[in-house]
Amino acid sequence: MSTLKGACIIGQSGGPTSVINASAYGCIKTALENENITKVYGALNGIKGVLNDNLIDMGMEDPAELEHMKYTPSSALGSCRYKLKDAEVDDTDYFRILEIFKKYDVRYFFYNGGNDSMDTCNKISKFMLKHNYECRVMGIPKTIDNDLAGTDHCPGYASAAKYIATSLMEIYHDARVYDTGMITVVEIMGRNAGWLTAAASLACYKGCGPDLIYLPEVSFNTNDFIEKVKKIYAENGQCIVAVSEGIHNRMGRLISDTGKKDSFGHPQLGGLASLLAKKIEKATGAKVRAIELSLLQRCAAHCASQTDIDESFAAGKAAVDYATAGITDKMVGFKRKKSKKGYKCEIELFDLSDVANAEKKVPKSWMNATKDGMNEKYIAYALPLIQGETQLTKEDGLPRFVHLKKVKAQ
Amino acid sequence: MSTLKGACIIGQSGGPTSVINASAYGCIKTALENENITKVYGALNGIKGVLNDNLIDMGMEDPAELEHMKYTPSSALGSCRYKLKDAEVDDTDYFRILEIFKKYDVRYFFYNGGNDSMDTCNKISKFMLKHNYECRVMGIPKTIDNDLAGTDHCPGYASAAKYIATSLMEIYHDARVYDTGMITVVEIMGRNAGWLTAAASLACYKGCGPDLIYLPEVSFNTNDFIEKVKKIYAENGQCIVAVSEGIHNRMGRLISDTGKKDSFGHPQLGGLASLLAKKIEKATGAKVRAIELSLLQRCAAHCASQTDIDESFAAGKAAVDYATAGITDKMVGFKRKKSKKGYKCEIELFDLSDVANAEKKVPKSWMNATKDGMNEKYIAYALPLIQGETQLTKEDGLPRFVHLKKVKAQ
Repeated sequence: MSTLKGACIIGQSGGPTSVINASAYGCIKTALENENITKVYGALNGIKGVLNDNLIDMGMEDPAELEHMKYTPSSALGSCRYKLKDAEVDDTDYFRILEIFKKYDVRYFFYNGGNDSMDTCNKISKFMLKHNYECRVMGIPKTIDNDLAGTDHCPGYASAAKYIATSLMEIYHDARVYDTGMITVVEIMGRNAGWLTAAASLACYKGCGPDLIYLPEVSFNTNDFIEKVKKIYAENGQCIVAVSEGIHNRMGRLISDTGKKDSFGHPQLGGLASLLAKKIEKATGAKVRAIELSLLQRCAAHCASQTDIDESFAAGKAAVDYATAGITDKMVGFKRKKSKKGYKCEIELFDLSDVANAEKKVPKSWMNATKDGMNEKYIAYALPLIQGETQLTKEDGLPRFVHLKKVKAQ
Repeated sequence: MSTLKGACIIGQSGGPTSVINASAYGCIKTALENENITKVYGALNGIKGVLNDNLIDMGMEDPAELEHMKYTPSSALGSCRYKLKDAEVDDTDYFRILEIFKKYDVRYFFYNGGNDSMDTCNKISKFMLKHNYECRVMGIPKTIDNDLAGTDHCPGYASAAKYIATSLMEIYHDARVYDTGMITVVEIMGRNAGWLTAAASLACYKGCGPDLIYLPEVSFNTNDFIEKVKKIYAENGQCIVAVSEGIHNRMGRLISDTGKKDSFGHPQLGGLASLLAKKIEKATGAKVRAIELSLLQRCAAHCASQTDIDESFAAGKAAVDYATAGITDKMVGFKRKKSKKGYKCEIELFDLSDVANAEKKVPKSWMNATKDGMNEKYIAYALPLIQGETQLTKEDGLPRFVHLKKVKAQ
């Protein structure tokens, strides 16, 4: 083991999740307790906090207050969607980052995010290696989308899945209450990967889920879809559909393409449920309700999986433990262990180069024969992840979320 | 006390809530245990179940399974939105109801619903009195809208309020995560009464609520609204708005009027958040997100208030206890007792004639001076109601909802 003494920076990036702060807390708490880490800085709004010299001193926070991070949704340090240019094209940002690292004697950099964040992390790691600045760089995954390569699953996914399955069970009960018939279309996030939408099948497993589930892993035919809805509605007077925002036709064109793009160049999605609802209404004359789970599916900490919270914390902790033990240029991930006692999850490390920008899709073999639902393989995969109820403290009957002082780094 | 022996019918009507089944269970369990009640029937889909002779025998259900009703959202017996004509205009339905009551020797009728259901309940009660058919009729209130006259609050309101406040706290954390600015508009149910939207202020009380809250009790000026949003956004780079679906202009015209009407002749609402979001986007150029809490706010049993569940159960129980003790033609409601030990709630009875079709609005004196938020009077009113976390059983990390056998009445 090679000892490296210095400060660390932790940053958060990309879309919020219910448990990204549990990872950050795992990282911060472990770093504060590690004798080789001299200072623990939080970068406000991810890499932008480094570029703008906008760091806070995590050591100035009250440790008891900091504990509430474990159960607070969204990114307590703020997030960003800032794409670093390739260093070969423009290395301005990289030299600025190096300048800040030198200024604060930063020898550890922990970056907590999804695909794009792992890309950022990878680029910084490679630049520092190339410029012989000794800094151990570790990626801590988070994404409700569950689409990071390598790892069995991503912190954040299970809590979103639990919320989606729970909400769909509740919607099922609500939507069937009248005998006058209703069709319900529920839009779920996930972009190109259907992991989140697949979670709707957990409600089916409990006997009260949607009739049809559409993932972006399979191309979507609107006419076929409407025929299926019509048939189910004619038989039951009810039909519930769960549909991924990212479904597309055979040509790859998104069914709901608003034309708008985000700063990474990804299309901005949304409005799909309303669009499909209008088509169904026209085709069936039935009452159709469109529901967008919207951002609640990524921030509903009150319905988080305690398994997810604990694993997220463990991922943050492992990043510090491995880095201080000499590891660098890796993303922390999970490996599922087959155990007679049931589900067990271990930490596994992945090369940043391998995970940056790679996308893991839902295996088609986990879908049913008609590709409008999931099978038992997905249930076996997802069920262990959503176990355990959050230990979130309640005050006045409402969540007690963290309040950080955010003292500027000196 | 006059003893009356016979069967009872319990029916549920109107929009679902998280706790209407807790009331039904309170009623069913108490009725099953009462020696004067010979049979307990559930009317499927409310009064339509009576009209269609579609009754189930609640005595055939497994008592242990029936207990799960207490924590199952939506109407387990099915609901309806069926308006009885005035008996003077057309008494066909009433004579049919009388026929069914006689067929099953029904001497107790319990109807579990909101304003329109209390109207149904009142009409049946008056008809039976007029035709000298001895039947004790009791209304058991439910409505997330909290707009029933007389009672301090309505079963169902507190759970919806808790969900709305919790979700807004989570949305607050999510919406502020980027430093690039965002405006969020959250649309909340409640029709003409602002009680549900007022619950957003509980999130403000916890330090993470919306900047602006608009109730239908005050007329809405779109230009003033946009100016306020602009100012807050310019100052903070963020703005969160909670808005009631029922807001209207000075002339009483709904800001979002789709032209569609439901079977009671009420306008069908929805789509307001998107509409306002578009106007704000145009006026500010900011990124604006529209969120409809949609029907999750009325069926999110996983986030129900245990206080609400217990009170709902107590209301159902009281209806049976009072009816078998000789009371009829009343709605069960709540009276808030001032107690040194804090909040205390007692059962109070109200004349059905007084509550049918009456609407209770939020007092304007509970709003802030600028009428875009609530004050401490509302907080003092609402806070005790949302206390306590649901004791809902979880299985496989997901809610365990009731499964009824629904054995047809003989």
